Amino acid sequence: MSKIDHTPLIAPPILCEAHGAPLWLKCENMQQTNSFKARGAWNAVKKLRNPERGVITHSSGNHGQALAWAARMHNIQAHIIVPENAPQVKVNAIRRHGGIIHICAPGIDAREETMNAIRKEGKQTFIPPYNHEDVIEGQRSCGEEIVRDQPDLDFLLVPVGGGGLLSGCALAVNEHTPNTKVYGCEPENADDAKKSFDSGMLHHPGNPNTIADGLRTGLGDITFGYIQKYVTDVFTVSEDEIRNAWAFAVHRLKLIIEPSCAVPLAVWKKHHHYFKGKPGAMVITGGNVDLAKLPSFDESLGFI
Amino acid sequence: MSKIDHTPLIAPPILCEAHGAPLWLKCENMQQTNSFKARGAWNAVKKLRNPERGVITHSSGNHGQALAWAARMHNIQAHIIVPENAPQVKVNAIRRHGGIIHICAPGIDAREETMNAIRKEGKQTFIPPYNHEDVIEGQRSCGEEIVRDQPDLDFLLVPVGGGGLLSGCALAVNEHTPNTKVYGCEPENADDAKKSFDSGMLHHPGNPNTIADGLRTGLGDITFGYIQKYVTDVFTVSEDEIRNAWAFAVHRLKLIIEPSCAVPLAVWKKHHHYFKGKPGAMVITGGNVDLAKLPSFDESLGFI
Repeated sequence: MSKIDHTPLIAPPILCEAHGAPLWLKCENMQQTNSFKARGAWNAVKKLRNPERGVITHSSGNHGQALAWAARMHNIQAHIIVPENAPQVKVNAIRRHGGIIHICAPGIDAREETMNAIRKEGKQTFIPPYNHEDVIEGQRSCGEEIVRDQPDLDFLLVPVGGGGLLSGCALAVNEHTPNTKVYGCEPENADDAKKSFDSGMLHHPGNPNTIADGLRTGLGDITFGYIQKYVTDVFTVSEDEIRNAWAFAVHRLKLIIEPSCAVPLAVWKKHHHYFKGKPGAMVITGGNVDLAKLPSFDESLGFI
Repeated sequence: MSKIDHTPLIAPPILCEAHGAPLWLKCENMQQTNSFKARGAWNAVKKLRNPERGVITHSSGNHGQALAWAARMHNIQAHIIVPENAPQVKVNAIRRHGGIIHICAPGIDAREETMNAIRKEGKQTFIPPYNHEDVIEGQRSCGEEIVRDQPDLDFLLVPVGGGGLLSGCALAVNEHTPNTKVYGCEPENADDAKKSFDSGMLHHPGNPNTIADGLRTGLGDITFGYIQKYVTDVFTVSEDEIRNAWAFAVHRLKLIIEPSCAVPLAVWKKHHHYFKGKPGAMVITGGNVDLAKLPSFDESLGFI
């Protein structure tokens, strides 16, 4: 049976030179299903009390693919609710991993209605994308691998959307290397985590517009609790800063990464004075992006 | 002054699992100028007897970029002869690294005529792309890094075009870990190295048609000598095999690599029975490819 991969942690010399110290990239774009979401989905499926009933979720993104994969690896069924306007490439990926696809109308109401109708029949266990202890525990393994491979990190930069990965990484760091500071990295245009963190009140993101499409979701109550407790701060970056970091990663580091992964890289650049010279790491969360949408690089802007 | 980077050596779990042992990728696509050619150019420039005269070469490919970069890092001039039909993206890259571009008519006669006219005036030193001891010595550093980082390799797979990298890697392995077998990897459609190796006579490639555009050149007398002496064998693969390996690297490993780099990956797959279970490595030679030309992946073919 396949399982979660211990992904490579690489320190591209071009980054380290600019940084003045080792700067590690945790390559979850090379994870099973090409995103860290495989970790949470795997753990949630492994811990099911009634595996024979199968699992269900509504997601056309990486969580949907990951859950389909984790279910198949455990020989159970995964039902994935997908809105009819989801990109064909994502639907194909879910199907490739063996997911049973249910098309619904766009919008959260239609999704939940469709899901409830299916669950009424089959009693599948709903696995949400982040606000769930088993999912968070799965993402925690990403942080554990990082600090076990490199225990002397000053900081760890993690993108934050729903906060599952950030929570998990912060929990792992708190246990293994509590002197490492963990920062959430978020688009300015979807800064609910920043607002929530600063105010101590859970903010909702509304309907944010950012190219970092994996980070449009808001925190959940469970993830917010962990983030308040174990995260040092949350930094935000503009759309231009994200786009430029993304283009740099693609054109100079030659890595295929989703725009969400460029957010920590953009934070590192923006706050270079703050991080410079200290050994650090960031999570490259996934690589599921349509190649036709990869950015061009404006040489005149440079990056480092 | 910037310098040659010690590039990451990564072992993607998805590959290692299929291989049944560690399988390392030497990421020269993350090297300065995004190809191993920086190594040879850097060493050749460093060893110049008359650096003040500058250097010259005819290449619209990675060697041209690398020589422009190495010259600028040493504060000397690089003149690069480029045929008028060269892609604009390559011309821009040479200019970005500070090369002085001379456009000539297509064809080897026009190139040499243009080069000779410029050299008559400026006495620049000609740095050829591979058949030159200083260039080979530069490429050798790539092999040295690999076997120093991973001394217990059973095999090393290296693409072969002109043979500079293959010669250099074979020399390094012979010195440091002589039990590691070094194999050249070549497109069937440009199998001059295979024919030369098998017959003991230097074959010329003619005008081969392969997507592995970095491997269309033929061996030189110096590189052929080293290859005869230190290389175990040369393997060839078809265009379909190269294309499929390339698509796998892009879509599953999420690495941006040139089609030439896919040749060792295709050799590994084709001769899996031969390599399986033995710790090995291959060189990912460069990442300078137009993103619009990246391949799609035929899921039905799979790869591993």
